[in-house]
Order: sequence, then C-alpha cells, then structure tokens
Amino acid sequence: MAQHLVTFHLDDPALGAHAPLHPVHVPTGTLLTEAAHTAGVEIVQPCGGQGRCGRCAIHVTKGEVRRRSMLRLTAEDVAAGYALACQSVVEGDVSVTVPPQEKIERRLTTDRVVAEVEAPIGYDARSLQTVQRVSLLLTPPSMDDQTDDWSRLVIALRQHVNVEQVDVSLPLLRRLGSILRDSEWNATAILDTHHALRTTLLDLRPVEPPLFGLAIDIGTTTVSCWLVDLISGKVAAQAAEYNGQIARGEDVISRIIYASKNGSSAEMQALVIATINSLIAAACEKAKVDPQDIFKATIAGNSTMMHLLLDIPAASIRLAPFVTAINHVPPLKAIDLGLKINPEAAIDCLPGVASYVGADITAGVLSSGMGDAEQLTLFMDVGTNGEIALGNRDWLVTCACSAGPAFEGAGVVNGMRATRGAIEEVWINGETLEPTYRVIGNAKPRGICGSGLIALLSEMFLTGLLDKGGNLNSSLMIEEEDDLHFASPEKSASVGVSVRGKTRRVRQGEHGLEYVVAWANETWHGKDIVITYVDVDNLLRAKAAIYAGYTVLAERVGVPLESVERFLIGGAFGKYINVEKAVQIGLLPDLPWEQFQFLGNTSVKGAYLALLNRNERERITQIASRMTYIELSADNSFYEAFTSALFLPHTDLTKFPTVAQALEKN
Amino acid sequence: MAQHLVTFHLDDPALGAHAPLHPVHVPTGTLLTEAAHTAGVEIVQPCGGQGRCGRCAIHVTKGEVRRRSMLRLTAEDVAAGYALACQSVVEGDVSVTVPPQEKIERRLTTDRVVAEVEAPIGYDARSLQTVQRVSLLLTPPSMDDQTDDWSRLVIALRQHVNVEQVDVSLPLLRRLGSILRDSEWNATAILDTHHALRTTLLDLRPVEPPLFGLAIDIGTTTVSCWLVDLISGKVAAQAAEYNGQIARGEDVISRIIYASKNGSSAEMQALVIATINSLIAAACEKAKVDPQDIFKATIAGNSTMMHLLLDIPAASIRLAPFVTAINHVPPLKAIDLGLKINPEAAIDCLPGVASYVGADITAGVLSSGMGDAEQLTLFMDVGTNGEIALGNRDWLVTCACSAGPAFEGAGVVNGMRATRGAIEEVWINGETLEPTYRVIGNAKPRGICGSGLIALLSEMFLTGLLDKGGNLNSSLMIEEEDDLHFASPEKSASVGVSVRGKTRRVRQGEHGLEYVVAWANETWHGKDIVITYVDVDNLLRAKAAIYAGYTVLAERVGVPLESVERFLIGGAFGKYINVEKAVQIGLLPDLPWEQFQFLGNTSVKGAYLALLNRNERERITQIASRMTYIELSADNSFYEAFTSALFLPHTDLTKFPTVAQALEKN
Repeated sequence: MAQHLVTFHLDDPALGAHAPLHPVHVPTGTLLTEAAHTAGVEIVQPCGGQGRCGRCAIHVTKGEVRRRSMLRLTAEDVAAGYALACQSVVEGDVSVTVPPQEKIERRLTTDRVVAEVEAPIGYDARSLQTVQRVSLLLTPPSMDDQTDDWSRLVIALRQHVNVEQVDVSLPLLRRLGSILRDSEWNATAILDTHHALRTTLLDLRPVEPPLFGLAIDIGTTTVSCWLVDLISGKVAAQAAEYNGQIARGEDVISRIIYASKNGSSAEMQALVIATINSLIAAACEKAKVDPQDIFKATIAGNSTMMHLLLDIPAASIRLAPFVTAINHVPPLKAIDLGLKINPEAAIDCLPGVASYVGADITAGVLSSGMGDAEQLTLFMDVGTNGEIALGNRDWLVTCACSAGPAFEGAGVVNGMRATRGAIEEVWINGETLEPTYRVIGNAKPRGICGSGLIALLSEMFLTGLLDKGGNLNSSLMIEEEDDLHFASPEKSASVGVSVRGKTRRVRQGEHGLEYVVAWANETWHGKDIVITYVDVDNLLRAKAAIYAGYTVLAERVGVPLESVERFLIGGAFGKYINVEKAVQIGLLPDLPWEQFQFLGNTSVKGAYLALLNRNERERITQIASRMTYIELSADNSFYEAFTSALFLPHTDLTKFPTVAQALEKN
Repeated sequence: MAQHLVTFHLDDPALGAHAPLHPVHVPTGTLLTEAAHTAGVEIVQPCGGQGRCGRCAIHVTKGEVRRRSMLRLTAEDVAAGYALACQSVVEGDVSVTVPPQEKIERRLTTDRVVAEVEAPIGYDARSLQTVQRVSLLLTPPSMDDQTDDWSRLVIALRQHVNVEQVDVSLPLLRRLGSILRDSEWNATAILDTHHALRTTLLDLRPVEPPLFGLAIDIGTTTVSCWLVDLISGKVAAQAAEYNGQIARGEDVISRIIYASKNGSSAEMQALVIATINSLIAAACEKAKVDPQDIFKATIAGNSTMMHLLLDIPAASIRLAPFVTAINHVPPLKAIDLGLKINPEAAIDCLPGVASYVGADITAGVLSSGMGDAEQLTLFMDVGTNGEIALGNRDWLVTCACSAGPAFEGAGVVNGMRATRGAIEEVWINGETLEPTYRVIGNAKPRGICGSGLIALLSEMFLTGLLDKGGNLNSSLMIEEEDDLHFASPEKSASVGVSVRGKTRRVRQGEHGLEYVVAWANETWHGKDIVITYVDVDNLLRAKAAIYAGYTVLAERVGVPLESVERFLIGGAFGKYINVEKAVQIGLLPDLPWEQFQFLGNTSVKGAYLALLNRNERERITQIASRMTYIELSADNSFYEAFTSALFLPHTDLTKFPTVAQALEKN
C-alpha cells in the first residue's frame, strides 16, 4: 500500500508557533487522528471519533485529505483547509497544523467540593470490616515439628479466625518463608474475610501495618477517590480528577464507540487506570500513607465505566437490546488491573442493574438510605447521564434516560464544565433584559456551565426572552432603524440601555437567533458568549428526557408524582443547581422546596459505606437484585411524556402551579 | 571496580577447534561460570556450583584466574592450566577454552520405557472427572430480558450443575460476549468442579471441544508427561525428557544451592517450565491434540522440584530443621506458571509430606495401592534420592535417606545414567576374573549405569575381587615379575588370560586400586572404563543409607523386616535392577524374590490416577495426612544401622542367608 508523509505542526505558543514534529509515514487511508498518534500527538476526540462534535478540527496547510464528514465545519472552514481529524484520511503527503488542544483545568477544590466526611457513627472495624489484621505468635519449626511454613501459618490463623480454607497467591507464597523468619515467627497476617468460607491472605508483615482502603467513583467526567483508614473509618484524604478517557469521548456512547475500534479498548482501560493511579498517589502523598498499606478498593461507576475499567467489551451496551457483559463483577486483585497499591489488595467492583443503571446508582441508592426508608423517595443522579430510582423499603424501580451531557456543557456553543471561568449563575433584568452573572473563580467568563444554563433558561423564560416553546422572541431584537440611536452596540450594552423594551443582545447569529450573555470585551477569550436557538433546543431535550424519565417511572408503578415525599438529587451536577430555577424550566417537578435534597457524589459515598461495612456491602447486592429496571426506550408513554415536556416548563402548566403563579406576576 | 577482558573459545569439533567468542568485560571477582553466561556459554554445573563434582573444568590458556577450590583436579591438571569454572574468579584478562559440554542424550524409548497404559477399569468421566463440559442453549437477550451475559450464562449453568458460585477470570470474561454471540447463544462451557461450592468456568466454546489433561512427574533427573483423554481416560501420548535443570545441579541439594544464588531461582523455574512445555508440544504433536484443549494438569514431584517449579524459595529444605515452605499447594492456573496449554487450565500440584518425602511419594503410595492393602507393604522409590514408606490400610510411616545419586552414576568415575552406551549388566568369570557386559543400545561402552554398578559390585564380591569391607584385593594384582610373560597388557586382556588367578585388570590407579571393566580399545572414547576404590566406597555408602533407611523405619514401628509381605520398588532406577544381585550387595533385604515387585514410575502413575478420578485425588490428600514422617537424621539408630550396612552385604551375615549360602558355594 502506498505510504505518505504526514508532518504535524503544533500551534502551541509555549513551543513557538507551528513547531514542526518529526514527519511520519502512514499508508493510504490512515485517519489523521491515527497519524497524529503515531507522531506522538494526541488530538482530543470528545465524541469518541464519531465526527459529531467538531472539536478535533485541524488545519491542513499543505496537500489534501479526504474528508468523510464535514459536520460542524462551515463552508469557509473547509475552504480555509480545516478538517475533522477523526473523519479525514490521508491520501497523499500533507502538512497539518494542530491547534492548541483543550486543556482540562483541575476542578477547583473549594469548600463546596471537598467536604469533611464523618466516619459512620458506631463503626466497629472488628465486626464490620472485611480486611482484618491478626498478630501471630508461631512456634518456630524444630526437628520435632517439621510442619511446613504455610500449614504452620494456617494452623495459627485458625486459632484466631473461624475459617475452612485460606487462599494465597503464588507471589505471596514466595515471600512467606523469609517474612516468617525475618519476624522471628511473630508476624501480622492481613486477611480478607469477605467470603464466609474462604479467607484470603492479603499480606504478611514483620511489623503490624495500618490498614487503608479506597472508595472510588469512576464518573464519565470525573473520577473521585477517597483514601480511608479502615480501622477508624475516617477519610484520610480525598482526590478528584477528570477521567483520562475524556479526550476519547465525552459521553458513554462516544467512549463505547471509541473503545470498540481495534485496540482502543486497552487504551481506554490504561487511561482510566492512569487517572486512578494518579489520584491514589496524590491521596497517599497528602495523608502520608504507603500505597502498600492499601488492602482494599471498592469501586462504583456506571456500567460503561465499569466495562472500560476492566477492558470488557462494552459494545452491547449501546446496541439493542442494550445488555451488559456483566453486572456483578467477581472479586479481583489490584495486580489484575495494575492499580498501584498492595498487589493482593481486594478490588470490589460494586454491582450494577442494567446497561444504563450501574453501580453508581446502586451505591447512590445505598448512600441515600431510600432502600430502608418508609417514605416514598425519588432518587435522581444527573451526571453525564440521568438515572432515576423510585421506591422505599418495600419496593424499588429504576430507569435511565439519555439526557445527554447538555447540562455539562456539551452540545451548547458556549457550554463548558463547572470549572474556573464558567458562568454558574445568571439573573436577567425584566426591564432592560440585561444579564448579570457570577463566574466560578471570579475570573473573566469563558462559557456557561450547567447551573448557569438552568438559570439562564429560567430567567430568559420569565423575562419573555424565551416563549413556552423555547423560541427566542425575535420582536425583542433591535432592527436597523432602532440602531441609529446608538454610537456602537458595545456602548449600548455596557451602559445597559435598551430601546423601548428591546435589546441588542437578541440577534441573528450563524445558527439562527441568539442571546448574548457576555460581550467580547468582558470575556476571557475576547469573543461574545451567547446562547443560541440550537442550544436552547438541546437543553430542552435534555430536561424533557429527565422529566419524562421520572414521571413515566412513577406512572408505571401507579404512584402520582405528587405523592413523592423526598426528592434526592445526587451527582456533581445536582450539587450546585438552584431548585427554584430548575422547577421553573420544568427540570424538577413542582414540589415543596424542602422535599428536595442535594446529596453530592452519592456514588463515592456509597462506595465508602460498602468499603467500611460488610453489611452495607451486602445491602448493595440486595439493592441491585431488588431494583426492577424499566427500559424507557421500549415504552411509548415515554415518548409522549418527553414531547409534552419539551416546553417551558411543560405543556400542562397545571403540573407547575408555582411557575404559573410566577408567570402571572411578571 | 576494575574490569577485565575474558575471551572464551569453544572446543567444539563441529565449530572448528577453538572457535573464539566475542570477548566480555567483567569486574574483578566474577566467577568464570558467570562470565561464560554473559558471553552466552552455559557451562554445566552438575553439583550446582559447589565445586564438588569437577565437571565444570575449563582450560585457562592465557592469563591467570584465582582458584578458590581445586577439588577433583590433579596437580598436573592445575599445572596445565585447568580450573573449575564454578570456583575460579577473574582477576585479570584471560583466555579460556571450554571443553565440549556433556550432551544429554535422549532417553531410549525402547519397549521397556514406554508401556501401553490401560485406562482404569470402570472409569466414568461423568461422575469421577472434575473437568466437565456442559452444552448450553441460552435464550438470547431481548428488550423484555436484558439480563447481562454473565448472569444469563450462570443461570443456564445452574440448570445443569448444582453450584452456588461460579468463578471466572477477567481474560475469559472479556471473551464471553463474543463467544456467546458467535455461537448464537448455543455454547459449550468447560467447568472445573473440583471444589464442591465453587465451580470455575475454564472456557466457553462455540463448538464442543475434546477434553484433555496432563499427568506430569517432575523428577530430579527426568520429567515425564502423559497426555490423557479425560473422557475415555486413555493415555493419548507419553513423553519424557531430562529435567532442564540438570546442568545446574544433579541432585536436589545442588539445585537448592544453585537456586539460592541471586536471581537463579527464576532461572531454575524457567528451565523446568521449558522442559515441560517441550514435552507438552511433543505429546500434542504425537496425538494431534490442540494444547488449548488441555484443561487440567496434575503434577507430582519431590518437594524440592515442586518448590523450584513454583519459584518458591527452597533453601529451608536443606537446612535444619529441614522444613518446606509448603506441602499442600493451592490450586493454580496454567497462566500462573506459563504452561503452554489452555491459560485457565487447572494446575493441581499434589501434596507432599515433608522436605524429603514429596508428592512423588504420596502419588507413588497411591498408585502402589498400599494405603488400601491388608498386607504389610514396604514401598521404596529410588531415584536421585531414596524414599521409603511402610504400612498398610491401617497405618503408614515414611522416611527419606540421602542415598545420593551414586546409583545414577554421580560420584563414580565412570558412572553415567542409563542411556545409550551405558554398561547395564556385568558378569565376572570366577576363574579368570574377566568380565563380560551388556551395553544399552548395543553400542561401544561409555560408562556404567546403576544396574551395571550393582551387578559389578555383586560379581566382584562373589569372585573375591572385593572383600566384605569393599576393599579391592591387591593380592590379585599382577606384579612386575609376573608381567614378563606378556608382550603387552592389552594383549593379555584381550585374550583373557590371567596369571595364576591374578589379573592385570586390578591395578594401581590415580585414586588407588581400581578394576578395569573395559579396555580402551573396546570403548567409545578410547579410554579404559574402571571402577575405583573411591567409587566402591561411594556405592557402599549409598546402599547402606537405603538399607539403613528401611530397617530403621521398620524398627521404629516395631515391625521385623522379615514380616514385610510385599516389597514394592518404584522409580526409574528400580525398573532395571537385578533383585538377586541387589540382595547380594545388601541393597535389598534377603526376602523371597516373588515378594519384590517393580512398579516403574509410580509418581506419574499416581498423578494419572489423581488427574482422572476425584476420589483418588482426595485419597492422595488423605495419604499425605496419614503418613507419619520419621526424620532419620535425628535418629541415632540410623547411624548405627548405616555403619553396619557399609559392608558386603552386611556386618551381620545372618540377615542375608541366601548370600551366605552363595558365598559358601564359591
């Protein structure tokens, strides 16, 4: 096959403009992303290489590539030589300039993110913890007692632990003799007693070590890791970081598509393992803990994250009839996954229920306590996806709705995650239609995050900028003749003057009507921050999916939504939203505010409980078995409910009495 | 540290004399064996590098080395530049010529070695075999049944197998989904059901495979491997080969010493694994079996071999109080050891009893049937070591005696293993004192193997060449004045004439008196084959250790040796010896010949039974628990018995009435 020369230039100011890389030879038909990988450049592919997001655009400066898709590129872009790296194949020698790749900034660790975690009240390591240490005083071997080392150890263990069989790995067996002799037959055994009949020897130490464990939540966006003292139950350190897979897809579907490509599955596993290992290193550094003293890790995460962690093919998750390869993962060891803790450490992947209701939800339901509650409770985890559980101690049903990551900023022109520079709260003056906003980190705004988008939609709706159907009110746009009064649009904006109830902020953009939230001179990048008609549509679809999700779920079990006594919201997303505004756009039902409760990352909290307490761990298995999964995509009523919810707040305003009241006031 | 240049020349006729190798740089103090390893030459070290055997001698042709030991080298050797590679360190630039290294010839596969093995009568794979295959007809997933692949499989399995928990490895889990879909949900599960509560999924196949297993005996000298059809129970192929560790020590002590050196433990493991893998490949080739269809391997071997196989430190085996690291090895998988069969195949290392009574003996006792017999039975396995078990279905005792490998040819100037060119039987004419002999493979003799040595000792004793104490009768030597009658010694020998009952074959050699078994002109290498005073002494010590072993064992349990009803002899060594002659030298007790029975390789036979039959496997565990180990080195009566047995046949001739009779006749 013909070979072509591809030269990449990095448009990185730090390297000097257009620093050229060593050219690579690739065969005809090679994707530019692959050629870049060969050249040592990783081009971010937020949609997993599907050609949908447009964020892998590069600039072909010499030669030509064949563009299989040009979605998200304008005719001018293409004429200027831009192409999507994930959709363009090499058919001749080319030079390519790679724009600066999106840098993911570290999540701000404000007091809102890292909270002090209290050890569960009454935690008793001796009775509840599966990892136990046992100090042994062995009789040394002699000519009168030539028992082998292993049997000698097992006999001594049986004096402390009621166990039939003791499992041990070959690598540990190899170290056994020298540890016993180094400790002068007075060693400490670290045991995993999670299985009633089979105890596993995790380690043997000459000196009694502390016992640590990890509670890990692998989110599609963020991975969280708590380092836990298994004796006191206290959290010694917390660390969180973006999931290293993000550059290979921002949502689970994109990740599955990327991972299904030849060889990419192992790459995806390596990326998330690297993320976890860096969190472990950071947490251990912070708390001055030796990673070898970590003997257990309890992992939660959605089903796709769990499959990718284990490098188990996830393709069946996204294809009808949407089944996982496995929901209850057998016990593993750290060494099986390459986690940099004690190699024998027990890895406990919490059980999931279905393709889109994973261990993050079973862990969340556990930490919410709804499975033991008398009150009818609705639990909702809105992260990159939306999962819902409804029930109480007698019954539990669950469903998932593909809300998509719109509220995390994807599919929204100026959307972004809740990091420094994100507009997180917006107020719009009903008279002037001028916004004021709050930015995370008190920085110049770079975009709008989920809570900002909810506030924006709500404010635009209540001020009449948006109608019930989500359409921007074009009559508020300043026409040519109105414009004569002003010297410059910036001036008009900066002084906050509108023309007879009209505003220059409503305008015709490339994608139709848009509203300008921040003018270029206020922003970090010197470009206007807007919300477009398309953005609003995407956000409405996301909120409608979530609303339809819990209403249909309630309907299916014959429970009116109004009878829900507690409405619990988990997930990082849920932590910052304004309930009033979320109700106003019809994302949350119109219930008394005191019934809503934000629980934060319920997944890692559930993992933490399961890590500490064998009864809680058993309860998660019961929750996974008890929850009846309802497949919404197979349900006609879901589509109807979805369509009805594609309005602000809903086609049926009687479902939102407080919103109707607010509208009347305006 | 100072570096020196070492140049090795191989004295290999095939390469042209003294082919020089690329010189290597090594620091001061490097052993020549290590320098050779660096240069890519492996110098055989039959004693494991202890400097005891003298077989690693090399020729220093330029420069000087420091000789830490010169054992087994004559003053002339040293003057001529010879040195022991394992005992000589580099202190300056040197050139070294390496003589041709001992080539281990493949064991002759005559009818005596490979025997047809009958499958056990009444073998029923369904009830007795732990590896089972189950054909499954699964309902494909649908929108109404979104059960995950793994649960779907487990539910289907439970319809066939009564099992609580099914274990599965991560690599197999990764292949699960595609196998189920490729087979259109009609796959065959291969299960390991050895544990009552925990079934392990070994493989899943779209098409039902045959089930094969391996019975393996890792002998110190020879590794034997039987490829077995687990359904019919038939042996499909057999293969045997020298243990690849031989060049690193010929006996277990030498191997342990070698393995205890830095990093050599992994090398020892790699050597025996390579041997086993080559046997598996050969057996599979012979029987046209796909190694992926081998799902189980049952392994027997002495405790040192088992430790070295698993790369578990064996040092404590040779140091008082002589304990192993482990006797009951937990279940392993092929992939843990790098065996080239199905990676999930169950590896079952049979249990041992003590440092010197290993799984080869428990397997041997099983295959001998003595554990179920009414008759008092003595079982003896003479290989590189000598192990003895005594008892019946009510009780079992066992001991080991460090006989050493003299009967395998080590420590005997012209000793060799039972391969082509070995003198295996000798007769000496009482009148002329001229020997006749039989050579394995009808070749020119190269040395004398175990059975030949026994015959030689016996004949020399009965013809008066040796006295009771093992001394060569110097009065039979032809003195100077006698010599005048002959033109040349060779002529005298070839015509077989002796001088007045004297013989030129008895002569003064370098190591004292010796007897010439074959003259140079008859032999393969053109050198005389002799047995020396030192050789006789080594052989007497070996036979005395064995005799003392079983007599003391019998004494210790208060059973007269004469009451033994069956005397079973296992091990390759035992297969070829002449009972009459073995009794005459006092190696075997003077019992009626019909009580002796040669069982061949009882270790591999026991492994074969355990491989096929779960009850037999359980019985081996019971045998290992039942056998009371008696440590002879802690026993004063052993030393007395040993000293008394250092005679031909024994100090107390009343213990050997038939020998006394024979001596009277002569």
